[in-house]
Amino acid sequence: MKFEHTTLGQRVLFGTGEAVASLAAEVERLGARRVMLVGDEAIAAEVAAKIDVAARCTDVAPHVPVANAERARAQAASSNADLLVSVGGGSTTGLAKAVALTTGLPVVAVPTTYAGSEATNVWGLTEAARKTTGSDDRVLPVTVIYDAALTASLPPELAIASGCNALAHCVDSMWAPRADPINQALAAEGIRALNSGLRQITTADGREQTLYGAYLSAVAFASAGSGLHHKICHVLGGAYNLPHAATHTAVLPYVLAFNSPAAPQAAARIADALGAPDLSSLYTDIGASHVLRGVPDAAEAARLILPSVPPSNPRPVTEADLTALLAAAQAGRNPTEWSRA
Amino acid sequence: MKFEHTTLGQRVLFGTGEAVASLAAEVERLGARRVMLVGDEAIAAEVAAKIDVAARCTDVAPHVPVANAERARAQAASSNADLLVSVGGGSTTGLAKAVALTTGLPVVAVPTTYAGSEATNVWGLTEAARKTTGSDDRVLPVTVIYDAALTASLPPELAIASGCNALAHCVDSMWAPRADPINQALAAEGIRALNSGLRQITTADGREQTLYGAYLSAVAFASAGSGLHHKICHVLGGAYNLPHAATHTAVLPYVLAFNSPAAPQAAARIADALGAPDLSSLYTDIGASHVLRGVPDAAEAARLILPSVPPSNPRPVTEADLTALLAAAQAGRNPTEWSRA
Repeated sequence: MKFEHTTLGQRVLFGTGEAVASLAAEVERLGARRVMLVGDEAIAAEVAAKIDVAARCTDVAPHVPVANAERARAQAASSNADLLVSVGGGSTTGLAKAVALTTGLPVVAVPTTYAGSEATNVWGLTEAARKTTGSDDRVLPVTVIYDAALTASLPPELAIASGCNALAHCVDSMWAPRADPINQALAAEGIRALNSGLRQITTADGREQTLYGAYLSAVAFASAGSGLHHKICHVLGGAYNLPHAATHTAVLPYVLAFNSPAAPQAAARIADALGAPDLSSLYTDIGASHVLRGVPDAAEAARLILPSVPPSNPRPVTEADLTALLAAAQAGRNPTEWSRA
Repeated sequence: MKFEHTTLGQRVLFGTGEAVASLAAEVERLGARRVMLVGDEAIAAEVAAKIDVAARCTDVAPHVPVANAERARAQAASSNADLLVSVGGGSTTGLAKAVALTTGLPVVAVPTTYAGSEATNVWGLTEAARKTTGSDDRVLPVTVIYDAALTASLPPELAIASGCNALAHCVDSMWAPRADPINQALAAEGIRALNSGLRQITTADGREQTLYGAYLSAVAFASAGSGLHHKICHVLGGAYNLPHAATHTAVLPYVLAFNSPAAPQAAARIADALGAPDLSSLYTDIGASHVLRGVPDAAEAARLILPSVPPSNPRPVTEADLTALLAAAQAGRNPTEWSRA
């Protein structure tokens, strides 16, 4: 057993229906007097009902364009903000992080989706269609306020897709380059929560479990880094402009089936957390599809992916392996039977 | 699901035989130039072989007497120390924390036992036989270097006792006042590691597992707080001057048996992590005793303990319950059969 693990210090307040009161208490606790509220949805103003807001930034856009970040930074400066409060999904959290990156202002994040960005020190900025990412502890929100009621307006298909994305973070954390026993324990707990939550996503309890699982998935993934699954999806998404969540959902069972024989302990933990030998029962119950769409040529995609494969992946990966994996996913073959063939 | 959880930010470097190299790399990474080494054992100098040491503090005593802390603080000031490196057990880590408390100096902790202090923000100081404790993030070591080889010189009985103490941290974290799903997940992982490690404590692998489990137990316990088990042992220890580890070891199976019917989910997680319905097989295999010694009068002890019982304990606790629990432990009755009677 040999590992380096960095635990990121952060406060988490978890409670359904508590966001308004928790945010007011947290702003008070932090002694903030000039809050800049970041968020473009009506929910942002509702959650901020009991705090004084010195500035409101609604300039949210996907992937945090640099121009938006610079406008938000100027607004934070001109309003003398001493705290950033973000209320929204990953793009909203991302914009607040972009402001924190250059200003050092603390962030209190109130997520409304299962994106997980609020639990990581990773930032991302986009300019001329190129995304730059990095990690910096200044962008890690000091406090996250999780209120599952805020996710109730997510359409179920979106909630399922977002939750499957969190599930992929957990599974890949088991064998990613910086995987360690701590990440694996958190990821196993995340799989347990997501497996339970996603099956009942239209209920309050299901949303709570999914939100809790999404938090754990982000903590584990931020520490473990991108494994085989995320490298495949990243390349596919960039090369063919595929929808993020659907691609992750389709690819995950095949990566799990491919890696499992070479990572029996990880596979056993995943199965134990799922209460099933693989993802098929969960996918059937929640209506998730393991059919990969939008990849024109599996062999070409495999060539593109190969250089990104982490050398530490538990099973060696050849171009032929990747071609076979993608072809099986395109055909929607039973992942477990495919891997045994 | 409603909880507040504070994750303490900390770096952990885990590797057997790596302490000397890891410490040198970490001092370099932190940019420290004036290290004060804290530790009264020969191992401290050995671990510090590859770093420059500006001052050596060997003034370690149990429970960190205030006089020792003040001498160490003066030494840190006069030597212009910019980093404290502690190498030793809980008293050594405690002394470094006492210096950090007033100076704000960062601490790199290299533990040589399973005490767990290195993973918490709790400090303690003793004056005129009275112990004061508190928590302050300044005393949390920025980095912990775990090297299981450093625990190899612990006599097996001491290692078992210390490891059982860590096990008690994990079990009690399941229902302590600030217990939450995150603590429970870490505690379950800790039980799994300790259950495996303690059974083979004389091997390198066993020491690694035990050290890893002790780390998790400290993280979970620092967040969850003292539950019924720790309150009982704290009062018994103070009232009758009982040996710490033996008392914890004896009481734990009875508290587990008492609380389990009222906390079925926690009990199931503990059983799952132990791979057994209770602690009896582990205790038999490692030669741990559940016979409580040194309590003159169970009824009197119960009266003393009752005011300390956490109101949040999953099962209501009466004075008669405590008397029965202690009497059963004194008689060394089978804990599981006792609780069913």
